[in-house]
Parts: sequence; C-alpha cells; structure tokens
Amino acid sequence: MDKTLGCKVVKIEQGEVSPADELLVYEYPLTIFLNGKKLATLLCSPEKLKELTLGFLRTERLIASLKDVESIKLDEVKGIVEVETVNKDTARESFYSKKVDLDSLKNIETSGFDDFLDSVNCEPVESNTKVTVDKIFEFMRTNLNYSEVFKNTGGVHCVAMCDTEEIKVIAEDVARHNALDKVIGESLIKNIFLKDKIIILSGRVSLEMILKAAKLQIPIIISKSAPTSLSVALAKKLNITLVGFVRGEKMNIYANKERVQY
Amino acid sequence: MDKTLGCKVVKIEQGEVSPADELLVYEYPLTIFLNGKKLATLLCSPEKLKELTLGFLRTERLIASLKDVESIKLDEVKGIVEVETVNKDTARESFYSKKVDLDSLKNIETSGFDDFLDSVNCEPVESNTKVTVDKIFEFMRTNLNYSEVFKNTGGVHCVAMCDTEEIKVIAEDVARHNALDKVIGESLIKNIFLKDKIIILSGRVSLEMILKAAKLQIPIIISKSAPTSLSVALAKKLNITLVGFVRGEKMNIYANKERVQY
Repeated sequence: MDKTLGCKVVKIEQGEVSPADELLVYEYPLTIFLNGKKLATLLCSPEKLKELTLGFLRTERLIASLKDVESIKLDEVKGIVEVETVNKDTARESFYSKKVDLDSLKNIETSGFDDFLDSVNCEPVESNTKVTVDKIFEFMRTNLNYSEVFKNTGGVHCVAMCDTEEIKVIAEDVARHNALDKVIGESLIKNIFLKDKIIILSGRVSLEMILKAAKLQIPIIISKSAPTSLSVALAKKLNITLVGFVRGEKMNIYANKERVQY
Repeated sequence: MDKTLGCKVVKIEQGEVSPADELLVYEYPLTIFLNGKKLATLLCSPEKLKELTLGFLRTERLIASLKDVESIKLDEVKGIVEVETVNKDTARESFYSKKVDLDSLKNIETSGFDDFLDSVNCEPVESNTKVTVDKIFEFMRTNLNYSEVFKNTGGVHCVAMCDTEEIKVIAEDVARHNALDKVIGESLIKNIFLKDKIIILSGRVSLEMILKAAKLQIPIIISKSAPTSLSVALAKKLNITLVGFVRGEKMNIYANKERVQY
C-alpha cells in the first residue's frame, strides 16, 4: 500500500493564493480482533501490519511468543486483522479486565512520583550487552536515512532493532509506539532473541517506549531527542541504558552508562 | 512547579567524554479521582493542572460544563486531583463502560476507512467564523514564542485558543492532547464560548486533536505541521477548517477553506 496520499490544497505563499497538490502521510485504521472479539483499532502506517499486530499483542502481554498464536488473517482492504490464540481465555481476560485503558500506566492504584515508578510492573533488565559510541552514531544515521517519508515530511517515526554489529529489523509508522511494536513483531516472527538488543528511535523517548522495551527486557535505548524526566527515572530504575540527543558527533548518556563503550 | 529538572549526564562530543548537567522536560503523573474512584493517570507538565483535569473531563464527555462540577481538590505533592460531580452516576458509568480504552476511536464497532469515519460520534461543526491569513501568521508566531521550554528543548507542545482578533488562552504540555485539554479547561473556567474559536497548534495535528475540537464544536484548527490523511478526511467530514504547514509566509489549507480570508 502507498505510504502517502495525494491531497488538493489551497497554498498561500507570500500573498499568492494557488491550488496545489500535496502529499499526506497515510494514516490507516487497523482493527484487531482477538479470538472473534474486537480488541483495538490502531491508527498506523499501512505496512508490516501482521508484524504490528503481533508486536502489539506481545507488548500488551496478550501473547508471550509466536507459539501462542494459532492463526493470523489480514484483510488489508477492510482494515481488519483476525488473530486466534491457542489458549483463548487467558489472554483476553487479562486485557479486558484493565477497564480504563490499554496502558497499565494509566491504571495504577497508587499516586505520586515515587509510588508511580514503584507501580510499574516490570523487572529490571539484566544484560552484559555493550555498544560502542561509533556504532551508536552509525545506527542513528542508518535509521534516519531509512524512511523516504520521514525525510520528506518528518511525519513518521523510524525504529530499528540492532545487535552490537548491525541493524536486524527496521520499521516506520505515523505513531512511534506502532513503529516499535512492528519491530518487536518482526523479531518474534524471525525468532530474534531480544534480551541483548539495542533500540534506535528517530524521535522522542516517551515513557511508553521505555515500558515496551522493559517488558521485552531490551537493555539499550538510543534516541535522537531528549528524554523526559520520567523516562530517565524509569530507565534508571529498570536498569535500561538510555542515550539521547544523538546528533552529529554528540550524544548524552542519561542512564546506566556502563553499557556504552567509549 | 518547575517545568524542567536538572540531570547529570555523560556527554560525548567529538570523542571527548565529560560529565555535564542537562535540563530535562518535567513529566509529572497526575492521577484523577472522579467521585472517589480512580479514573486515569495523565503524564503531563506540572502547571494548569485543574484546567487539565476539567478539560480532560469535558473532552471525555464526563462533564458538559462547570455546573456539573461540585468540587475540585488538587494535591500537587501527591499528584492527585479529586473531582466530585453533581450527578455522581451518569458520568462515571459512561466512562467505565468503554472497556478497552479512553478513546472512542479505538473502541468502534466497525472497520475500514469509510466505516471508520462514519463511526466517529460527532456532529459536523456549524460556524460562520472567518479568520484572515495575516492573523493566522500572527497567532502562530505568538504561540511558538510562548514557551521558553519549547524554544529550549522542543520537548513540549503549545496550544492557543483565539477569537478572530486575539489569543484568549494558551497552554503548554509534554503531550499535545494535554495542552489542548488545558486550554479547553481554562476556557470552561473563564466561561469562554467555544463554537466560534480558533485552535493554534505548535505541533502535528493528530486525529485525536480534531476529535477533541469537534466535540467542542470548534470550527478552525491551525497547525505548524502537516496533517495525516485521516486528519484531513475527518476535518472535511466534520466541516472543520484545517490549515497546516504554517511556516514563515506560507501555509496550506487542507479542508473547508471558506473560513480563511485571503
């Protein structure tokens, strides 16, 4: 499917008004049905949709691996993907019992900053993976160059999954969390071990990204932008290495510097 | 409360490694209790928190106006805001019955692009408001200059609410939807009529922003960036004027140009 869509606009430039054709980033509604029941509609870029679905199910902890999936059927025209799991009950109940929100973060029973961090239901990441400064610069350059749409419009996010030598999986999406889910889903399909990998983000580190990585026990996150205070606090708590502001020949290590070799 | 937080980092610059102090955008967890029951935790910038709460309740359709609110009590240290509504039942039930997600978008019962647009439960916006091209440029400049944090880090979003002459309310936040909710909440408090107003966004137009504006029947949305295909389709369907790519002396009108005077 195309990643962009033509659109007629009225262009105004230094007082001149004219009709023009512009390209829009394509945003596509994908509705996931799990064992016959509607789970969620994701607004996404229309590629790697099975990967997105599997990654979403994995980071929502509805499946643990590909073995839990009996079948996955995608209808691109209707924007529907139907997933059957081996065990029909466990997955669904745990999801629907979270009444208010998809995200466990918004469903916590405590409050305040420290309580908030304590409430995050994730184990700290144990990993001896190390990455060199040169590789970080290289991965970021490759990631930023991957997407034509990103370069043309800046309207999509690219996420890459690397080992210490090379990029293994890369994906783009209008939503950063979808791009990460696509990378995780493709890793599941390719049976890639995740607990020693590195995530490269074209955009900002949101707390959600740290949480998704933590659920998969991914030890290193590299971002082009600056993280928020809560992202740094959570990365420290969960023993995740967080590198930000990777631009040109510069970077900042915000948490757990031991995994960066310089 | 401070909008930024100091952080010790390891800075690497052209091969030189040194410790450094960096400023992080402050991300604050605010937990909303509605009539004694936990509703949601918003990750936000720690200012205009009552405005945020009221705007969130309004755009989630849990209140219709300030008259529905019996009391609002904010504890900034604990990160808790407690709201009591006049009618305790209606509001809460309608929210919690949306099992999967806060956002009605992700909870629709239909699929496919057209069905998806049809499923959006909003009336088209009727308004004769018009805005001039010069005012659009002026509002965007003022909006972008509002936030020191935005200028320093780019890590926050600014949203302004204007009539055809001047900016009435302005707010910033780490999340664009929070910034819009703050502006809407402050408008409720100040009893500002919204159905002839203009929204100015420092960042990208997400579908969520169009939906929030539509729920309040706000007729004009102006953004610095390009909208996605679905945002444009929804703006057209809901009769909202959508202007994007407002940069320097340029802009594009993507939908319902009649409200722009040039």
